[in-house]
Amino acid sequence: MKAFLSVLFVLMGGLVAAQERVVATGDLGVVVERATGSVLIVDQSEMGTVARVEGFGDLSHASVVFSPDQQFAYVFGRDGGLTKLDLVTQSIANRIIQAGNSIGGAISDDGALIAVSNYEPGGVKIFDAETLDLVADLPTGSKTIGLVDAPGRKFVFSLWDAGETWIADLSGGEMLLQKFQNVGANPYDALITADGRRYIVGLFGEDGLTAFDLWDETPQPKKILADYGKGQQDLPVYKMPHLEGWALAGDRFVLPAVGHHQVLWVSSANLEELGRTDTHGQPIFAVARPDGRHVWVNYAHPKNDTVEVIDSLTGEVIQTLTPGPAVLHMEFTPRGHQVWLSVRDANRIDIYDTRTFEKLGEIPADTPSGIFFTARAHKTGL
Amino acid sequence: MKAFLSVLFVLMGGLVAAQERVVATGDLGVVVERATGSVLIVDQSEMGTVARVEGFGDLSHASVVFSPDQQFAYVFGRDGGLTKLDLVTQSIANRIIQAGNSIGGAISDDGALIAVSNYEPGGVKIFDAETLDLVADLPTGSKTIGLVDAPGRKFVFSLWDAGETWIADLSGGEMLLQKFQNVGANPYDALITADGRRYIVGLFGEDGLTAFDLWDETPQPKKILADYGKGQQDLPVYKMPHLEGWALAGDRFVLPAVGHHQVLWVSSANLEELGRTDTHGQPIFAVARPDGRHVWVNYAHPKNDTVEVIDSLTGEVIQTLTPGPAVLHMEFTPRGHQVWLSVRDANRIDIYDTRTFEKLGEIPADTPSGIFFTARAHKTGL
Repeated sequence: MKAFLSVLFVLMGGLVAAQERVVATGDLGVVVERATGSVLIVDQSEMGTVARVEGFGDLSHASVVFSPDQQFAYVFGRDGGLTKLDLVTQSIANRIIQAGNSIGGAISDDGALIAVSNYEPGGVKIFDAETLDLVADLPTGSKTIGLVDAPGRKFVFSLWDAGETWIADLSGGEMLLQKFQNVGANPYDALITADGRRYIVGLFGEDGLTAFDLWDETPQPKKILADYGKGQQDLPVYKMPHLEGWALAGDRFVLPAVGHHQVLWVSSANLEELGRTDTHGQPIFAVARPDGRHVWVNYAHPKNDTVEVIDSLTGEVIQTLTPGPAVLHMEFTPRGHQVWLSVRDANRIDIYDTRTFEKLGEIPADTPSGIFFTARAHKTGL
Repeated sequence: MKAFLSVLFVLMGGLVAAQERVVATGDLGVVVERATGSVLIVDQSEMGTVARVEGFGDLSHASVVFSPDQQFAYVFGRDGGLTKLDLVTQSIANRIIQAGNSIGGAISDDGALIAVSNYEPGGVKIFDAETLDLVADLPTGSKTIGLVDAPGRKFVFSLWDAGETWIADLSGGEMLLQKFQNVGANPYDALITADGRRYIVGLFGEDGLTAFDLWDETPQPKKILADYGKGQQDLPVYKMPHLEGWALAGDRFVLPAVGHHQVLWVSSANLEELGRTDTHGQPIFAVARPDGRHVWVNYAHPKNDTVEVIDSLTGEVIQTLTPGPAVLHMEFTPRGHQVWLSVRDANRIDIYDTRTFEKLGEIPADTPSGIFFTARAHKTGL
């Protein structure tokens, strides 16, 4: 191929060079095509698709992290597959099956290590980001959830069955492992704030949540929002919300309430509840626009054709959009001028102006779910 | 040309599409070589230089912004030069002399517009980021300073002579211009917070600073830190500190105090002073590590061989480094595991681990000043 291109270059002279379209990776992204085990590589500036790449296995509930140079996307599949996608060659650079059933992963702050959280068997495995060779195996005897990266080459995660949180510190020669018990009944998801300071665990088995201050020399689990229970109303819980979706808007977090038609506002200073906003349905993701002024919320089935926009100063819903059937995910451009929505059952990505709420474009996609832009490479906990 | 391309596409089939070249630029950066009018393109992961590019004119006090795809760096020179550097081809893509004497620039949140702040003649000029064609000319009859981008395709800047702040909104067909008088005597620099909410103006001609809440429908100038004066001590001011260096560390800002051997801590909630930390010299930049836990400070001549690291929780200096003569600038890797320092008079960039404070490497550079990593493309006000 290379030889052929060289010949072509000679034949065509400067014309070929003029035809070469150079694309840098800073405005690229990956869209997960759930049903077909494929991903689209998309270009934010062009509002279009660069390539479709296949062979990722089971991509239900898949998530993606990026290498610091934004050349590689690491795709975590439900089937235990860890696939390294090269955005430059638009092909799979490496793929391993590292467990039977996995849920999410993370990349260390220096980009050197990839960690994967497993259901079957439980535990966390840590791989060399370059080679995908196994670096550390941490069996937990439990399903692990809420795996995040923390500053200083750390990973933090929690154990569904045991109600524990573990911190693995890989900054030195020997891995240091801290374990915290009595975190609460059945942690089901967790998040780390963008500054890497607070790790907050959602509990399925009891009311409230548990928070750690990782800036503390000896962090301890602390119960927060103890009055907030998933069982206060008799609504069936269609889908647990994503705690990764917590967002910092000004001086407050926003939290999709489990089983309620509400989002909760929580003070970032003391983690106490500031108020609630009634919403269209059971929220799944509540994501702040990067400037924090607005929060965009999508909803569980059967209300998942709708997106609401909430003003984070007033807590009021200021806009309602109905992009189409099954809006699964929302991703902002890094400085927030656009938002991209996956409309699964319309087989489409929709692109909106975040200030005028005007629809700017759409991209065909096969049952799209997660949308991940490469700017995530430079953020903690994404 | 287009017709020819179509023909070629038919002839070559998929091959032409394959000529699109994707290049990863997420971990690149630009180092300004002040004396020689050149820049180094550096690679964070390799801790090395990719290329030296020459022909940028007078680069004293130069600054740099990046296109959203991280392919292009826009270099603002002191001589009014605006140079578009292609990081992929490692060459100058375009260069104009747009004024006689300029100081800093900004890029709109959608990456479409470049604004430059001018001393001679005063005013701001706005250019198409693609072509560098003039889009808008805003004469101010005054030296302009503190030019920043704000969300929603806005630029904000202040007038040294007139004591005014202007907001130019280019989100619609017609540019909207808001002007605020009585901002204070001789604004000398300004900053916008990372969320784009607060624009804060440093004053040379009187005590205190002036802040705007840009989330307000009708923002108004508000005096803050009124007791803080540059004249409280009789120290000569060797160099005015850079307000772009303000940093958010947890729930507080840190501010290099003008003419004092101190940094100030300011509440991000109400912009009131929380306390001060005594420092080695007159601070120039006070930059928070991306997680906000530590603040790194460098100093004015004759104390500019030293860098101090302050714990943002306790306000105490926890580390003192003496990298070498004339440490002019500090840039963190996006997730904060390293910091790069320009040591001008040693003709060197030094690279430190931000947790162990161990020196990891160095890169030769000719009188280096500013260091700018491409991750800035995705941040407001940088």
